[in-house]
Amino acid sequence: MSFSRSDVHNFAAGPSPLPTPVLEEAAKGLLNYKGTGMGICELSHRSKEFEAIIFGAEANLRKLLSIPDNYSVLFAQGGATTQFSSTLLNILAYRRMQHKADTSYTPPPVDYVVTGTWSAKAHQEAQRLCMPPQPGAEPLAHPRIAATTKPTKYTTLPKADEYSFSPDAAMVYYCENETINGIEYPLDQSSPCAFPYDKIPEGVPLVGDYSSSFISRPIPHLERHAVIHAGVQKNLGPAGVTVIIVRNDYLVDTTEAMKLGGIPPVPIQNEYKILADNQSLYNTPPVFAIYVSALVLEYLLAKGGIENLEKTNREKARVLYETLEKAEAAGTVRMVVREKDARSWMNVVWEQVGEGANEKFLKGADGKGFRQLKGHRSVGGIRASLYNAVTVESVQGLSEYIDGFSA
Amino acid sequence: MSFSRSDVHNFAAGPSPLPTPVLEEAAKGLLNYKGTGMGICELSHRSKEFEAIIFGAEANLRKLLSIPDNYSVLFAQGGATTQFSSTLLNILAYRRMQHKADTSYTPPPVDYVVTGTWSAKAHQEAQRLCMPPQPGAEPLAHPRIAATTKPTKYTTLPKADEYSFSPDAAMVYYCENETINGIEYPLDQSSPCAFPYDKIPEGVPLVGDYSSSFISRPIPHLERHAVIHAGVQKNLGPAGVTVIIVRNDYLVDTTEAMKLGGIPPVPIQNEYKILADNQSLYNTPPVFAIYVSALVLEYLLAKGGIENLEKTNREKARVLYETLEKAEAAGTVRMVVREKDARSWMNVVWEQVGEGANEKFLKGADGKGFRQLKGHRSVGGIRASLYNAVTVESVQGLSEYIDGFSA
Repeated sequence: MSFSRSDVHNFAAGPSPLPTPVLEEAAKGLLNYKGTGMGICELSHRSKEFEAIIFGAEANLRKLLSIPDNYSVLFAQGGATTQFSSTLLNILAYRRMQHKADTSYTPPPVDYVVTGTWSAKAHQEAQRLCMPPQPGAEPLAHPRIAATTKPTKYTTLPKADEYSFSPDAAMVYYCENETINGIEYPLDQSSPCAFPYDKIPEGVPLVGDYSSSFISRPIPHLERHAVIHAGVQKNLGPAGVTVIIVRNDYLVDTTEAMKLGGIPPVPIQNEYKILADNQSLYNTPPVFAIYVSALVLEYLLAKGGIENLEKTNREKARVLYETLEKAEAAGTVRMVVREKDARSWMNVVWEQVGEGANEKFLKGADGKGFRQLKGHRSVGGIRASLYNAVTVESVQGLSEYIDGFSA
Repeated sequence: MSFSRSDVHNFAAGPSPLPTPVLEEAAKGLLNYKGTGMGICELSHRSKEFEAIIFGAEANLRKLLSIPDNYSVLFAQGGATTQFSSTLLNILAYRRMQHKADTSYTPPPVDYVVTGTWSAKAHQEAQRLCMPPQPGAEPLAHPRIAATTKPTKYTTLPKADEYSFSPDAAMVYYCENETINGIEYPLDQSSPCAFPYDKIPEGVPLVGDYSSSFISRPIPHLERHAVIHAGVQKNLGPAGVTVIIVRNDYLVDTTEAMKLGGIPPVPIQNEYKILADNQSLYNTPPVFAIYVSALVLEYLLAKGGIENLEKTNREKARVLYETLEKAEAAGTVRMVVREKDARSWMNVVWEQVGEGANEKFLKGADGKGFRQLKGHRSVGGIRASLYNAVTVESVQGLSEYIDGFSA
């Protein structure tokens, strides 16, 4: 059976849907980019054509997110998994350089806020990389947990008094949106679930994983962050490129830092500074992923900027959560995240009540063209991801289906 | 001025041309993959559709290159630059595990054969990563140069007696084709320039960078290699994915190795074993780059396999080098690589003789539709790259232009 794009409502968690006009443009560019006679993947990344694309993408990101001039915007290969390492490695190099003249450099604490699988993995990776260089020696740093919602199985967000930050942490790391359970820090800073930006100790770098909500709404307190990283394959482009926003004073020559000793070595591909010095063209970048992301940025800017995106995404989430709450009251649905303020706009997660209900729901949904609704393999259930390219209409359609579904 | 694909002969050094039928297919798949109603970049990498693509690509690579069953075939993000680190990190972890019970583990030598910029960078990266963990301490390993052609400015290949391998090296690393000067180890094993496979000490892992010649011809003595790495953006696909062929006994749990101490920590993204254990789906892979590479593999197999590719590429190189030798005899051209056996089939590098001759040549070439012939920015001159998608006809056209050109 064959479907057209208009037959299908794609709720994938990532890779995720892309706007049809962007894909149509990209399909042309794939064969012949702007009458060069060569496709975008066949041009040098150092051509004036590609440079215009990547510099244009950077300019548009700056515009969309109001990124201050003292931040660099980088495009890196690898996804969040690479950034679990890169954030730690660059920040420790920065820390080491800060203590350059210090004869008493001691391995610092590194604070992780663990609210789901991805922040847990980041913490785990820090433990790996900071392992003692010899058995019995001291670790290179002390990754610790500043707050965790593991006791609630990552179905809540910590409250303000549940965070305990090290006054001298090398960084505080958090994940703004955890995709598996659909946990997202609320935009509303007065919420009890809000991320406690004000509690970050003075001078401690703040690092945020914004992979799954990037460009869906503004970034709160962007200027308080040292680093923000975001794989693009949720709201911005195809898999293969990660955007890194890093304040320029955190860019360090990791080779110089490594010479001081006491930090994990930094593979050159992980270093932020060399990427920044080369405007992301240190080596061959993921050209096609950057190209499509650049097209998406133009498309989104033409639709009105970040306020408009926030408005639309807020509405999509509202429609779906309202429907689910109604169904929960009727006993057919169980929400995974009970705290309303912690509910993600990007990933809406629930279970259909009753034996075999999830499978029946998914089958029926599929029959109506609602695709990729299966929950993450680690938790099962249902997950509708509502990234930028998912329309309000698709969400309304799904809501009607939920309304009418009985197991 | 607007060109069609048939107007243009693309001699780019990477990213490089792709077969038109492949791009046409990919353009369709971008919008709607096989009637799913979703484009290839909008499907889950864990969908049955994408699994079929990536497993099919692996199967075709095995077929094309006759890869034995005791090797894994992996698809990784990042390019050769990442592999400069990954090869060293994984091999040292392997080395450390080999000496697990050994109370007298000592930092091993690591041998680099340096025949150009890329092998030089790999050596340099090893020096970075193996730096003493504290000033005054011993390095974690001793990268050394087993042979180098730096004295000839990387315009020759070493001869058999110029290699001095450490009997106990953690690995011997070489680059099969250096793209900047166009230096490639000859297929003919009886040549004085041939890579000395027989001189690699018993038990020492051999690691080869095959990025720029991958799939252009057979890999000599594949089974003598521990690891072969190849970014795909020369002969196989768009930028963004690297193929790694690694013998299974070299796959180690780097976390376990790190616990033993004495080796650089390995960021999890760099580890080969975790990629192998997850059939390259540890995290979101570069979906589109793998998809297009998979299409290219089908296309190449349909055209007759590796022997046919070798035949065609040999002919392309022959035509162009003959033309250049004639022009050199006439005094209009100066070949960069004087040793015929060291001349690359993939990158043909020369200078036009006379003041302003290079620029005049390039301008005229461009006017005839011959694109991306400018030499690497570090050396200037002319460079024609003859990757798989470049046809014999394009090469003949270029040769005619060279024949008729006067400065």
